[in-house]
Amino acid sequence: MKKPFILVTNDDGINAPGILYLSKIAKKYGDVAVIAPDKPQSGSGHAITIHTTLRILPSYVHHTDIEYAINGTPVDCVKLSVNKILPKKPDLILSGINHGSNSSINVIYSGTMSAAIEGYLEGIPSAGFSLCNYSIEADFSNSEKYICQIIEWLLTKNKNELICLNVNIPDLPSEEIRGIKICRQAKGNWVEDFEERLDPYNKPYYWMTGKFTNFEPQAQDTDEWALNNGYVSVVPIQTDLTCYQSLDKMKKDFLE
Amino acid sequence: MKKPFILVTNDDGINAPGILYLSKIAKKYGDVAVIAPDKPQSGSGHAITIHTTLRILPSYVHHTDIEYAINGTPVDCVKLSVNKILPKKPDLILSGINHGSNSSINVIYSGTMSAAIEGYLEGIPSAGFSLCNYSIEADFSNSEKYICQIIEWLLTKNKNELICLNVNIPDLPSEEIRGIKICRQAKGNWVEDFEERLDPYNKPYYWMTGKFTNFEPQAQDTDEWALNNGYVSVVPIQTDLTCYQSLDKMKKDFLE
Repeated sequence: MKKPFILVTNDDGINAPGILYLSKIAKKYGDVAVIAPDKPQSGSGHAITIHTTLRILPSYVHHTDIEYAINGTPVDCVKLSVNKILPKKPDLILSGINHGSNSSINVIYSGTMSAAIEGYLEGIPSAGFSLCNYSIEADFSNSEKYICQIIEWLLTKNKNELICLNVNIPDLPSEEIRGIKICRQAKGNWVEDFEERLDPYNKPYYWMTGKFTNFEPQAQDTDEWALNNGYVSVVPIQTDLTCYQSLDKMKKDFLE
Repeated sequence: MKKPFILVTNDDGINAPGILYLSKIAKKYGDVAVIAPDKPQSGSGHAITIHTTLRILPSYVHHTDIEYAINGTPVDCVKLSVNKILPKKPDLILSGINHGSNSSINVIYSGTMSAAIEGYLEGIPSAGFSLCNYSIEADFSNSEKYICQIIEWLLTKNKNELICLNVNIPDLPSEEIRGIKICRQAKGNWVEDFEERLDPYNKPYYWMTGKFTNFEPQAQDTDEWALNNGYVSVVPIQTDLTCYQSLDKMKKDFLE
C-alpha cells in the first residue's frame, strides 16, 4: 500500500503543544507535512487573508520534511498548502489538537475546524481534533488512542469517501473515557459579556468573554451530551447552510 | 405599531458606500443603529477577537442616534452591539450591502453573512445583502426595490419567526432583473492561485487570488443559477453543520 501523505495544521500556532502531539501521531501513519499559522488564531472562523499578503516561513519544530509557518489564518494555511506548497494533494488533513472544545456552535467560530472544513471543500478527507481543556499544559496522552482510531478509520474503511469530522475529546483520565460516540451538533449559543477596562489614558477598551448555553441538554444524540457523559464526540460535517424548512415556507410567500 | 429597532452592520467598513445605502433604506422602516467595523473585513468569516482588545469609536457618517466603528470583525460588531452597546435587543439586523457576491460557498468566508448569522444565533431575524459588483463605485440603486421587499416581508409576514437570509442581487439594470427567487446554496468551491512577488529585500510574499467553480451549473434551484439568470437570490440559512447522511453510515462502523 502507498504510504498516505498527511497534512497537519491547527489554529493555536505551529509551536503549540497540541499540534506537536498530533504531528507525532500522524507520523505513525504516513509522510507528514506540517503547515500551520505562525501565531495563535483561535476564533478565526473561516477567515481568509485577502487585504494583505502572506509569507511562507520555514519552521523546524516538527522534524518533518515539509514544515512551514504562515502569517495567516488556518484556512489560508490549507489553501496555500494545497495550491502552492505541497508537491501533491494530501490524502488526509488533520487539524489540532485544539486546546479547548469545538463542540456545538463552536464549530463555526473555530479555526481548527475551519481548516478541516477547507480541506473537505478542496476534496480532501479531513478531521479536526479538540481536547476539552484550554490550558497550555493540557495532557494530550489520553486522546491518542481515539485519534488513532479515527485516523485508521479514515485511512481504511472510509478510504475513498470524502468526509469531514469534528472530534472532541473530554478531559478525563483514560479509564473514565467511555469510547467514541457518533453524534450531531448540539443546538446552543454563546452569550457574550464584555469586560471594560481603562487604558493609561483613561479611554475604555473591551475584552470579549462569554458563556455557552446548550439549548437541548436532555437530547442524548448531541456532541454536548456525549462530552458531558464521558464520550469522545464525533460529528460528521457538511457545508450546505440552506435552511430547507424555511425555504419551502418562503416559496409560498414569494410566488415566483 | 411600535417602530422597529434595526441594527445595520457590514464587513466592508462603516464608511463603505454599500452600508451608507443600506442605512438610508433601513431608516424608512424604523429607528436605526449603525455599528460596523472601522476598516474593511472582507473574508473575515465567522472570526471573533479574543486575543486582543476591542474599541468602540464614535462615527458620524450615517446620521443616526447610535453609530459606532469597532476595531474588530463583523461578528464582534454584532456581539458588542447586542450585549454591550444597544439599549435594547434589535428587532432586525441588516448586513451589507456587500460589494461582491456571497452566493454558494462564499457564505462561509463572508463577513457580511457571518454578521447576519451571528444575529440569528442571538435570536434576532437577520439578512445579509450583497450586490454582484466588487467595485467601490457600484450602483446600488437597482437593489433598493428588492431590499425593501425583503425588509417588509421580515417585518410583517415573518414578524415572529427567527430567520436568517442570504440575499444576493445581480448587477443588472433594473429592467433586466426578473424578481426574487427563493433558492438553496449551490455546491461549489474556490480553487486558489497564489501570486508570488518579491519584496525589496528579494524575499517572496503571496497574494491570494482564486476562481470559483459551480459544481452544479445545470441545477435550477440554486442561488448561482438564479443570479446567472437575472434573479435576486434569497437563501434561508441555518447553522447545523451536521452531515446526517454520514452520521447514519458512521454509526454502523463505530458500534457504540
